[in-house]
Amino acid sequence: MQKYSFVNDYGEGGHPDILSLMTATNLEQHSGYGTDAYSNTVRQMIEQTIGKTLSVHFASAGTQTNLVCLAAMLQPIEGVICANSGHIAVNEAGAIEATGHKVITADSTDGKLTVAAIEKVLKRHTLSPHVVKPKVVYISNSTELGTVYTRQELAKLYQFCQDKGMYLFMDGARLGAALASTHQDMTLADIARHTDMFWLGGTKMGALFGEVIIIPNHEFAQNFTLYQKQHGALLAKSRILAQQFMVLLKDDLYLDLCRHANQMATQIGNAFVTNGFELQAPVQSNQVFVILNDAMINKLSQHVHFYVWNELDNGQKVARFVTSWATKADKVAKLLALINDTN
Amino acid sequence: MQKYSFVNDYGEGGHPDILSLMTATNLEQHSGYGTDAYSNTVRQMIEQTIGKTLSVHFASAGTQTNLVCLAAMLQPIEGVICANSGHIAVNEAGAIEATGHKVITADSTDGKLTVAAIEKVLKRHTLSPHVVKPKVVYISNSTELGTVYTRQELAKLYQFCQDKGMYLFMDGARLGAALASTHQDMTLADIARHTDMFWLGGTKMGALFGEVIIIPNHEFAQNFTLYQKQHGALLAKSRILAQQFMVLLKDDLYLDLCRHANQMATQIGNAFVTNGFELQAPVQSNQVFVILNDAMINKLSQHVHFYVWNELDNGQKVARFVTSWATKADKVAKLLALINDTN
Amino acid sequence: MQKYSFVNDYGEGGHPDILSLMTATNLEQHSGYGTDAYSNTVRQMIEQTIGKTLSVHFASAGTQTNLVCLAAMLQPIEGVICANSGHIAVNEAGAIEATGHKVITADSTDGKLTVAAIEKVLKRHTLSPHVVKPKVVYISNSTELGTVYTRQELAKLYQFCQDKGMYLFMDGARLGAALASTHQDMTLADIARHTDMFWLGGTKMGALFGEVIIIPNHEFAQNFTLYQKQHGALLAKSRILAQQFMVLLKDDLYLDLCRHANQMATQIGNAFVTNGFELQAPVQSNQVFVILNDAMINKLSQHVHFYVWNELDNGQKVARFVTSWATKADKVAKLLALINDTN
Amino acid sequence: MQKYSFVNDYGEGGHPDILSLMTATNLEQHSGYGTDAYSNTVRQMIEQTIGKTLSVHFASAGTQTNLVCLAAMLQPIEGVICANSGHIAVNEAGAIEATGHKVITADSTDGKLTVAAIEKVLKRHTLSPHVVKPKVVYISNSTELGTVYTRQELAKLYQFCQDKGMYLFMDGARLGAALASTHQDMTLADIARHTDMFWLGGTKMGALFGEVIIIPNHEFAQNFTLYQKQHGALLAKSRILAQQFMVLLKDDLYLDLCRHANQMATQIGNAFVTNGFELQAPVQSNQVFVILNDAMINKLSQHVHFYVWNELDNGQKVARFVTSWATKADKVAKLLALINDTN
Repeated sequence: MQKYSFVNDYGEGGHPDILSLMTATNLEQHSGYGTDAYSNTVRQMIEQTIGKTLSVHFASAGTQTNLVCLAAMLQPIEGVICANSGHIAVNEAGAIEATGHKVITADSTDGKLTVAAIEKVLKRHTLSPHVVKPKVVYISNSTELGTVYTRQELAKLYQFCQDKGMYLFMDGARLGAALASTHQDMTLADIARHTDMFWLGGTKMGALFGEVIIIPNHEFAQNFTLYQKQHGALLAKSRILAQQFMVLLKDDLYLDLCRHANQMATQIGNAFVTNGFELQAPVQSNQVFVILNDAMINKLSQHVHFYVWNELDNGQKVARFVTSWATKADKVAKLLALINDTN
Repeated sequence: MQKYSFVNDYGEGGHPDILSLMTATNLEQHSGYGTDAYSNTVRQMIEQTIGKTLSVHFASAGTQTNLVCLAAMLQPIEGVICANSGHIAVNEAGAIEATGHKVITADSTDGKLTVAAIEKVLKRHTLSPHVVKPKVVYISNSTELGTVYTRQELAKLYQFCQDKGMYLFMDGARLGAALASTHQDMTLADIARHTDMFWLGGTKMGALFGEVIIIPNHEFAQNFTLYQKQHGALLAKSRILAQQFMVLLKDDLYLDLCRHANQMATQIGNAFVTNGFELQAPVQSNQVFVILNDAMINKLSQHVHFYVWNELDNGQKVARFVTSWATKADKVAKLLALINDTN
Repeated sequence: MQKYSFVNDYGEGGHPDILSLMTATNLEQHSGYGTDAYSNTVRQMIEQTIGKTLSVHFASAGTQTNLVCLAAMLQPIEGVICANSGHIAVNEAGAIEATGHKVITADSTDGKLTVAAIEKVLKRHTLSPHVVKPKVVYISNSTELGTVYTRQELAKLYQFCQDKGMYLFMDGARLGAALASTHQDMTLADIARHTDMFWLGGTKMGALFGEVIIIPNHEFAQNFTLYQKQHGALLAKSRILAQQFMVLLKDDLYLDLCRHANQMATQIGNAFVTNGFELQAPVQSNQVFVILNDAMINKLSQHVHFYVWNELDNGQKVARFVTSWATKADKVAKLLALINDTN
Repeated sequence: MQKYSFVNDYGEGGHPDILSLMTATNLEQHSGYGTDAYSNTVRQMIEQTIGKTLSVHFASAGTQTNLVCLAAMLQPIEGVICANSGHIAVNEAGAIEATGHKVITADSTDGKLTVAAIEKVLKRHTLSPHVVKPKVVYISNSTELGTVYTRQELAKLYQFCQDKGMYLFMDGARLGAALASTHQDMTLADIARHTDMFWLGGTKMGALFGEVIIIPNHEFAQNFTLYQKQHGALLAKSRILAQQFMVLLKDDLYLDLCRHANQMATQIGNAFVTNGFELQAPVQSNQVFVILNDAMINKLSQHVHFYVWNELDNGQKVARFVTSWATKADKVAKLLALINDTN
């Protein structure tokens, strides 16, 4: 019998309604490259939810989305600031640099960026023309450590960017989990109000694949598809990306799915804490980062899959447990039992 | 009632068996980024068909595939030679140049490259270090004009590349249509024998999306996934790419699908010729390029969608009709009637 | 005894006055990276000559200048149009593509671009987002074939660019020779009036090295030095670039130097024509492109160095003879004697 | 009367012998782009000094040299590790990223890299294909803080790189100052033995401009000029770069010049220490980094130019004083008097 996996939130396929819709509409003929009727429908759904006119585009994967968005926002002489744990800084194989841009890291301990940390970076970037111009601030929400931003935090960052002539970009690979988090107070409309560009990731919240890019700042509307095409990020059959978001956005299904994932993670986090294990970061969405000893790692490894994420400078090991819309409650219950079983 | 479309071969979704397999396996948990069991199965299927060990990878779209493959094959100081009609030269929004490489065009009238045309390019590239090193020869099969290569033609090109220390790369966006063509004599194994890297496009032969990259030359095996990741071309849920090719490759389903498309195109081409219209290129696969007068364009446009592809130097207009696995025979029959109706 | 060289116009060092000025001011302390007093002086000299406020920058070499200027003018999704013989297309080792931009060639037989040739390119670039946006028109003056533009020709090209929302950029590697040509009617001020950016090359008209970039279009003023720095094109001791142009621009010394070079070339060209040899292009500046038979090539090769430039499609060979400010009249006289000696 | 400058080591022109040689040979005709007789002479001088066959090339400026060398050493999927104070990381306007490569910073407090710091970086770069391959270790010698490496330190780094399949690259913008330092024990031959590629900067040790690149690792010999040309880093009149190094290398003139600079800096550093000021780093070459209070900064600013380099986290200001081959002893004496004058 195969072990159940808490390794990531992309182990299963997509929400069944997605496959149903694809099957039902399969032989319809549609135009391609983002011009199909389903793409337009999703555009309207998002504009209605957010309450203003926006650009809406689709992409296939997270790294692709980040690199295309930043390519569209940055001039060659400009760089992007992110937390030292930011996905573009550590886990995208130099994708941003491959498009010619410097990724400048700012200090962070919980995955979140602050105005103070950004200011420190800006101070190091005044000796023009010997330094790039930091032009975009990149944040991920939820962050790579599972933490989430509050509305006030986001508003502050956006205001700061506005004041400095910079743009704010949100990587939303797990934005669904953030919006479903009980540790924050934002809606999709709030995000749109306080960013220049952001994306809502489908892959990790029930799509088979795909992300939707939402661009409140009209400056970037005109040429965006060209940046997509140039980086190989336009699907001929764009309908299949749009259809997935039709399903997920309808009646806020995605929030329901993400709430489930978050609850499962919260239960796991609580169990660890109850049993005396320290969390590396508070559990605010669907990821649990917990410092485990080797005994516990070995014990749990016999029953479930999870990630030994990294080793702290002091030698302690951090394990990561991730839940998703598809995580089964009974499997979590078994994991909790294992954690609670102190024999 | 909507007009039937012969605009392209990606208007419909995917073969129904694909959606069935996805639905049946949807809640299985799998590892990601190309390491899943289905990806391995497809690798074995392809190795078995071709009869040798190869690297096999998946990508989401054609331009993405071309840019990743060429990035993996070329050093920064090297360029790629292609026909003046080559997709990378004319219709990929500078994707190859965006990765830093020069695309060098060679003369061609039918979309195909010849040794003589390549030699002419090489002659212009001897004044080192003032010129890039032409290192890869890019061909598309079927070509952008619907023509196909024979085994002998491919073998010659490959031998020439070998002699010159160059690589041969085949863009297979419509390789299925080429392999199903009655105007050629090659199998997938032949292609593998006479290229360093090639891909078999799913999008235009019945997949919802996705292409499979096959790499006979072992030099490129080690780092290929890194190039994919760096260009945002790795899907987390890679299983859904692999499953599509499992379906299409099984019992050579893709060849059956492409044969249908080719037959439909042949009928359309023949009808035009019978009625005195000149083809821009012979119909050898699933595309028809025909020189039409305005009257004919207007008449057909009232009933079906198609592309007025370009205008020749003499002012004549070339129309393109494309068929696919999903093209309905009765719709083609109606088109033929329109063409034959000389009133 | 070494053979005298007509291979190029950079075989000798620089005008003696340059070395004198450098020597006289050598131990002065100056600020760097283009902020020194000499750089400012040259800026004023150029603004005075041209009669308007401009950005003025310095670079070390021609390919560097082209790549920096185009990087500063082009967005990543934009490309540059040039004649098929344009230096950036054929002899810069993919430098422009290495910065991510497509170089799009237009038809030309004499090295010059016309509105008609550009229009043909634009017609091929309408299928957005599948094609790059042609944004800059690149011309070289004098061209790679030694021909020069007239004021009317330049004005037409500029007006066309303005109408189309494109920029006009002039590669001035041999602009001195062009401005000194009796086959044209432009001044530096005219060039500034009808281009967005251009450069006046020092290397080929008496500098030890270096080119001066003149930017009439204020859009590009703000970030230009950043593009220079990013591409390694800022000299710490920028004074030594500026000092060279102080000497060359003073009392239009460069025009005197270039007139000499042009006269020498004209004599050579005339001698060939008188003796029945066909020129590939009319001699309008300091380069002679002449079709020679093998006997003549062999004879001349015994006495002087020159370039067998290329081979025409019909097998004929084109030889190039280049003169410079330093070309000695008595050496030219000897060459003329050889050409005229029909034994 | 203008204030004397200790702002940098490129305020003056070049060593007088350089201008003399240029003047004496000015009208000689030479071939270009690195193929001239003087370039070959310098190649022989360096090979003789180092005692083995090497590739030797010339470049115009430091950032250019770094970007060309790294472009030649790195595949697109590879990155370069450097100290957090490394010039390529902080002061080259994203030049390395503009060629597509990630610059990965390692911890350092004195500008130097250690095996331990590199190992920590490597540990963070194991999750392929989600991270770039760290392939080159970049060190500067002397460092950006004026410190120098010993032979043993360099040998260790090189051995580590060899063991890991990485290359060691030394930025020698101030290598002359390092080799002339009394705090180290290396010769040019030692550097060549323990690096794959390095450069000896002319600009900061008496050249008008220019650097010489020395490549012990033969892997990089074949295509290096192509990388130079592609990045605009080949001078037509390459002779003027070579001639400068002929002068500087002859009888180790450059070491004499650098010894003078180092001695001047040592005197300044000692004066500060004697008067109770703390150095940010020990003075080991021609740069002094000293923590000064505002009173001292104001006092000295009235008499000489220097750099307020940065502000420490605790608010203290670090001033930088740089000396060169041309720094006048009497001007240093006056500065010492100012420092020692405690009224």
